[in-house]
Amino acid sequence: MTQRARDLGLACGALPPGPLNAITDVLGLRVGHRTVREGDVLTGFTAVLPHDGNLFRRKPRAAVKVINGFGKSAGLMQLAELGQIETPILLGNTLAVGVGFDALVTRALAENADIGRETGTVNPLVLECNDGFLSDIRARRLTQEDAFAALDAAREGPVEEGAVGAGAGMSAFGFKGGVGTASREIALDGRLFHLGVLVLANFGRAGDLVLPDGRRPTPAGSGEGERGSVIVLMATDLPLETRQLKRIARRGGAGLARLGAFWGHGSGDIAVAFTTADPVHHDENQALVGLSALHESRIDLPFQAAAEATQEAVLNAMLAAPATIGRDGHRRPSLADWLGARP
Amino acid sequence: MTQRARDLGLACGALPPGPLNAITDVLGLRVGHRTVREGDVLTGFTAVLPHDGNLFRRKPRAAVKVINGFGKSAGLMQLAELGQIETPILLGNTLAVGVGFDALVTRALAENADIGRETGTVNPLVLECNDGFLSDIRARRLTQEDAFAALDAAREGPVEEGAVGAGAGMSAFGFKGGVGTASREIALDGRLFHLGVLVLANFGRAGDLVLPDGRRPTPAGSGEGERGSVIVLMATDLPLETRQLKRIARRGGAGLARLGAFWGHGSGDIAVAFTTADPVHHDENQALVGLSALHESRIDLPFQAAAEATQEAVLNAMLAAPATIGRDGHRRPSLADWLGARP
Amino acid sequence: MTQRARDLGLACGALPPGPLNAITDVLGLRVGHRTVREGDVLTGFTAVLPHDGNLFRRKPRAAVKVINGFGKSAGLMQLAELGQIETPILLGNTLAVGVGFDALVTRALAENADIGRETGTVNPLVLECNDGFLSDIRARRLTQEDAFAALDAAREGPVEEGAVGAGAGMSAFGFKGGVGTASREIALDGRLFHLGVLVLANFGRAGDLVLPDGRRPTPAGSGEGERGSVIVLMATDLPLETRQLKRIARRGGAGLARLGAFWGHGSGDIAVAFTTADPVHHDENQALVGLSALHESRIDLPFQAAAEATQEAVLNAMLAAPATIGRDGHRRPSLADWLGARP
Amino acid sequence: MTQRARDLGLACGALPPGPLNAITDVLGLRVGHRTVREGDVLTGFTAVLPHDGNLFRRKPRAAVKVINGFGKSAGLMQLAELGQIETPILLGNTLAVGVGFDALVTRALAENADIGRETGTVNPLVLECNDGFLSDIRARRLTQEDAFAALDAAREGPVEEGAVGAGAGMSAFGFKGGVGTASREIALDGRLFHLGVLVLANFGRAGDLVLPDGRRPTPAGSGEGERGSVIVLMATDLPLETRQLKRIARRGGAGLARLGAFWGHGSGDIAVAFTTADPVHHDENQALVGLSALHESRIDLPFQAAAEATQEAVLNAMLAAPATIGRDGHRRPSLADWLGARP
Repeated sequence: MTQRARDLGLACGALPPGPLNAITDVLGLRVGHRTVREGDVLTGFTAVLPHDGNLFRRKPRAAVKVINGFGKSAGLMQLAELGQIETPILLGNTLAVGVGFDALVTRALAENADIGRETGTVNPLVLECNDGFLSDIRARRLTQEDAFAALDAAREGPVEEGAVGAGAGMSAFGFKGGVGTASREIALDGRLFHLGVLVLANFGRAGDLVLPDGRRPTPAGSGEGERGSVIVLMATDLPLETRQLKRIARRGGAGLARLGAFWGHGSGDIAVAFTTADPVHHDENQALVGLSALHESRIDLPFQAAAEATQEAVLNAMLAAPATIGRDGHRRPSLADWLGARP
Repeated sequence: MTQRARDLGLACGALPPGPLNAITDVLGLRVGHRTVREGDVLTGFTAVLPHDGNLFRRKPRAAVKVINGFGKSAGLMQLAELGQIETPILLGNTLAVGVGFDALVTRALAENADIGRETGTVNPLVLECNDGFLSDIRARRLTQEDAFAALDAAREGPVEEGAVGAGAGMSAFGFKGGVGTASREIALDGRLFHLGVLVLANFGRAGDLVLPDGRRPTPAGSGEGERGSVIVLMATDLPLETRQLKRIARRGGAGLARLGAFWGHGSGDIAVAFTTADPVHHDENQALVGLSALHESRIDLPFQAAAEATQEAVLNAMLAAPATIGRDGHRRPSLADWLGARP
Repeated sequence: MTQRARDLGLACGALPPGPLNAITDVLGLRVGHRTVREGDVLTGFTAVLPHDGNLFRRKPRAAVKVINGFGKSAGLMQLAELGQIETPILLGNTLAVGVGFDALVTRALAENADIGRETGTVNPLVLECNDGFLSDIRARRLTQEDAFAALDAAREGPVEEGAVGAGAGMSAFGFKGGVGTASREIALDGRLFHLGVLVLANFGRAGDLVLPDGRRPTPAGSGEGERGSVIVLMATDLPLETRQLKRIARRGGAGLARLGAFWGHGSGDIAVAFTTADPVHHDENQALVGLSALHESRIDLPFQAAAEATQEAVLNAMLAAPATIGRDGHRRPSLADWLGARP
Repeated sequence: MTQRARDLGLACGALPPGPLNAITDVLGLRVGHRTVREGDVLTGFTAVLPHDGNLFRRKPRAAVKVINGFGKSAGLMQLAELGQIETPILLGNTLAVGVGFDALVTRALAENADIGRETGTVNPLVLECNDGFLSDIRARRLTQEDAFAALDAAREGPVEEGAVGAGAGMSAFGFKGGVGTASREIALDGRLFHLGVLVLANFGRAGDLVLPDGRRPTPAGSGEGERGSVIVLMATDLPLETRQLKRIARRGGAGLARLGAFWGHGSGDIAVAFTTADPVHHDENQALVGLSALHESRIDLPFQAAAEATQEAVLNAMLAAPATIGRDGHRRPSLADWLGARP
């Protein structure tokens, strides 16, 4: 059983985590993985479904912050303009964005007969990192069926972390990277809300990592420069305006910087934040709709939660990922081994 | 009595105007002018007060779109970040922004004892154009007292247009420019809303103006290149998220382009949009507040209203402004004269 | 033989066009079409290649302006961050973005063995409009082979306009839309530069179109609301900083607004501008490189060229497109017929 | 003599500092302070002059990144649009922005007879933090003469740090804040360049500060929430495009986050970056000008320098500032005392 950052005395910040310390502390949210390990290929898809209904008909309010835009993600322009998500979110490798796009279109067309007829089109949301250091990304192994498998595997509850799904071939700070998650509780007006983060961690130069206790783990023999990226998904059940969601997404960058990153040139560092409160109904027949939003003066609480959970989710991703040998013998040690956390 | 664009067959677009065809069709909104004409100085302040209460304690939701950022306006950064206005809006000349800033601070401190003590500071909103072609802008004639006079003159009802207030020394398309206004009615869910625009028009090269009927008025003997700017204030009583207000503000640029402008390099073309619905209470004690917002699918209606009213407000500004001789004998003819609209 | 806007007295603005009045007035730039007409499917790809070399190794400086972000285009985030284009540009239909992405990746991998190995990845640039009114877009008929066909068909010289390539199934202002082009000459420092525009025109509500002479062509019997988009590609040989390219791209919006558009909610209105001057060499071994840029005080000239050529390119697209009956009997008349331009 | 961070084993990051470890390692750059301590007033102006010539006639290329926009700074909109600075940079308190604006206008008019006549206007650059916790900011004590004094005091060489100039009344992380500086050397193509940072540090909640060695200094008895801000000025002699300068400015946020900040809601966190290479000549008579720029692939080096120098400049500001009692008995302890660094 892997130990998480918190178990090792590496909790980040001061706010309490949710029950699972995972993005799935936001009720109804589901995560699924499809991992592909075949010869020199170590890759996969990870799917995040904000709720269990038809996302095209009930669209979560959302925002995006491009921390550093060296990336090929699909769907962010429309998300920014309309403040809405209308498909599941797929995480994959850089050259699989086209496949992910096609898979989400296939599913959306199957479930919504009006798309392309009465309703216009659909905006698939696919985010990516480059796993080409460990995996033969030129093989372009992933198919629409792999994406469907990730979508169909999506479940509530604990989230499998580390070298799974889209995280299979990722690297971070010269160690093995992958998928990680964390959450924070936010108490307001006598109610308890959650903000959960899921990261696809594939960023950071070897030697730059700083732990919350000040230690600086450096992998042996790694001279590779940074070519990575990191995707930060933030989910919350707190009611928020889309402008507020963008402010919160931005704080993902603070979480990354606390780990020692400076959002390197070649890194696609993207944060997407969404709320499950007050979704937008595609088939609304009223022009004016009611919603709730946070009074701006209280927004430091979700800001802090976003920074802390992002930082901790990256550590959780790294700690759950074992030492790995990939294509052409490329190696990534495990942060857990460096810490002596694994027997 | 001056004739407005609509009286001369120059109505812009298809939506019906409000009762006054003015920004003051938004109930509670007030406009005041202070005009200074002294020798070579033709300048002034125009004040727009979104409602008749304390704006620092009840802040209208707002957004800004910088169409072309050659300008010195104060207050836009915080407006964009927080989506709020918390002082009256002052329009003036470029070199009077500091004076306007000071005047709004003076008033805000007088009315709010907590500013600078328990509450942080205040964000004055001052927008400007360069009236230096007709006026001796280097004289820096405007004082805080002039700003107070504009604020104190603010009234509901019809808005004086043309060479008044901040519009005293402005130019547009080689003609005399100034302050103008227009509005549109928006019917939704069986209710009637209004979107009103007030412009400070000081933009456009001589020869570029196109009227809605295709005519191209060219002033005699004007060879001056563009060095102007235009400020577009949009007010509405329609409930909107701040992201939606930004989308609407952007359509001010369409109204300007329909007049023949291409948002010239040296022009500070700024649109600020705000709604009087669901203001943010400074002293709110709930963390979560309810508001209404427009379903995004209906937003073409305020888009169209914004473009049409901007276009018509500029024509109204020009038509109300008489032929003027300013500093060093610089001249601007009147569009009304070109059209033969004035006896 | 179709007549172009200029032949019909509908020239836009004042600057002189280039020899071809086309984007190909920028030397070395090539355009290719692949048109698919099969039963209810009217669609295709159009390829624009900024120069005739390997674009990944010699990357044109570029910028993007999102006029309205209701769209699914791929590659814009990295283009904005780095100010570079590194693949050909593909235009297609909305649901074919994944296919276009894959096709550009296939070609880039074939031509550059270092991608995904030593060099990181590649950023495919695919832009789109929704041709679902006339074409069965749900059929998802386009393949990578269709994209290759458009790329391989790319030629210098005159550009075929109208219902070809990606323009096959497009609509504009209730008429048949499609691909159009125009250019302007820019004289500076005794040298002659060109700015060319190619549009994929699929935007504008029936009844909103305004011609340069003030006429308002309204198609018979069209009650369809706007669900369209428009892609504006601007190419120039003028040396420019990427910030300047973004300012120029923005002026595409002025050209669209002069036609009567207000950049409708459901319209993906995107302008990409690039220069063939001083491309960025992928394999550069100097840290500091020399380039030229326009002195900012002269930028009104390319601004004006961008607005005028965008406006005229849309008219050229519409005039070259014949009346069309598409899927389920949906009809679009031809603007040329409305004008009586065709016998 | 105060000790700087580096003297206390608190150097940030890995790159070597310049000879002065100060923003003045960029040759020709000058810094001046005017400090006002009168009763309950602790405030001042700090002036930064990028070079020793007329800044309006020779404008440094520049960019701005708004990390969090709760602030009232003047001049940023035009700086972002044109990529130029054309006046000295003034740092002051929030309510003195109008005074600073006026002072810069006064100087610019005196030195440039064409402003407001042939040339348009001038864009004063004034940045601010709220020193109202320690100082009676409502007194509005600063005058144009104070601004002139700061400008006239500007010198090359070592920079006075701590509670001086605009830093007189500032706070950070519950300690006394102020002005600080640091620099890094950047070796490229066999030449040595410098990137220097000067901060006005007035941000961070008590208890959030993290030192580079992992210690967390917490001031005794401080229960004040964050209402601060931080201004980060970055100067370099490295040739850069304005888009690149913006990317570098953004990395100031990483430096702040490494200190434990999350860019709080009420904090105006602004980074302005400029280069002294290839300034823009106001009176240029060529349309096309030559410049150098960094090949994008090398930009991680100035990114790292920006993050490291920002982090260290804040520590230098805090270490140089003594424990202070301000208005109404408000107290801020000194970080130097906490560290036992001062005898």
